Amino acid sequence: MSESLPTIAVVGGTGNLGAALARRLGAAGRKVLIGSRDRERAKAAAALLGHDIGYGSNAEVAAAADVIIVAVPFASQRATLQDIAACVAGKIVVDTTVPLMPPKVMRVQLPPEGCAALIAQQVLGVGVRVVSAFHNVAAHKLATDETVDCDVLVFGDDRKAREVVIALADACGLRGLHGGVLANSAAAEALTSIMIFINKTYAVDGAGMRITGSLVPPAAS
Amino acid sequence: MSESLPTIAVVGGTGNLGAALARRLGAAGRKVLIGSRDRERAKAAAALLGHDIGYGSNAEVAAAADVIIVAVPFASQRATLQDIAACVAGKIVVDTTVPLMPPKVMRVQLPPEGCAALIAQQVLGVGVRVVSAFHNVAAHKLATDETVDCDVLVFGDDRKAREVVIALADACGLRGLHGGVLANSAAAEALTSIMIFINKTYAVDGAGMRITGSLVPPAAS
Repeated sequence: MSESLPTIAVVGGTGNLGAALARRLGAAGRKVLIGSRDRERAKAAAALLGHDIGYGSNAEVAAAADVIIVAVPFASQRATLQDIAACVAGKIVVDTTVPLMPPKVMRVQLPPEGCAALIAQQVLGVGVRVVSAFHNVAAHKLATDETVDCDVLVFGDDRKAREVVIALADACGLRGLHGGVLANSAAAEALTSIMIFINKTYAVDGAGMRITGSLVPPAAS
Repeated sequence: MSESLPTIAVVGGTGNLGAALARRLGAAGRKVLIGSRDRERAKAAAALLGHDIGYGSNAEVAAAADVIIVAVPFASQRATLQDIAACVAGKIVVDTTVPLMPPKVMRVQLPPEGCAALIAQQVLGVGVRVVSAFHNVAAHKLATDETVDCDVLVFGDDRKAREVVIALADACGLRGLHGGVLANSAAAEALTSIMIFINKTYAVDGAGMRITGSLVPPAAS
């Protein structure tokens, strides 16, 4: 990755979360490309989002970027990662997958691997710096210009890679926080089912999560 | 359980979390008994806590109470629950166990059963209403008279039992929230390792967790 700001690909960039992240990152002046299995859908979505956002197939944008955000449903996670695996060696892949298993999306159902982030690492192999984040953000709120009252827990075994993703969360107007090793992603992935339950039980339009206390940001590594 | 306020036992009541909960509940006018494997230790702890808190062995206080809070380390959970199992049929047992496995307490390590709360249900059997809660509260903060800036996610398959425990959290000056089925406890249990990591990484004296959004409390069931 060059010293300048990394180019960011959003694989699954036509979905709710992917499009919202692409738009916020584009608005923050980041170079963003959105990908889709269907190149034409990516083109149409990029045109709608504005901010000079580029587009391509998932593999094309992954190949062209330094940091690749993957925002697809759990059922598509494995196939999507296999599709881009050849294009991401040595790069940072940000997996946002939450292992929701419809119809019981209000029930925590972590996969046998422990969490979706560990599946991503397994599929991509050790040569890829997998980070996971953005599990608890309400996509429809992120799609607006409003402040989203939610912290972003960022997990990964490589601290420098986490720092890059924390900067992306911050660029989106969120607060990114180190959450520890990749296996810890289970906490944020599981929390999403609790959020959906709380939205329904307490009639909330997109609950969020904040860590409380006087946090002193650590020095960059 | 009678219509009046339930009597509460805190099994493992001489530990940090148990003692802090007992003190806050006692201060709120609840009838509280603290238990320990060692009856004499329970007696000494009760005297220190004040508020007319009673004491006994774990099994004695479990037998005498309507609601039993279990606050022991993960390594002692199973044996403690077996010790009180005969005394809690038909009652509400509030498991607070976090499956921390020293020395790697900053790494999420959920048990094969899914979470500690499901282990509790397994040990106690279906005749006991198991609820889990209080996983994310910093015990040393709860031990003071200060406001603790943390929500309490309450899990259980029986909604009325969750409501009883939410009322206990509220009595402790915390905000209790329905978190859904017992299996969802995995989210809050896992989050504790994240909190410990954040305390260390961001030099926080006891981070907490808040759910954001305009929550409308549901009507009591």
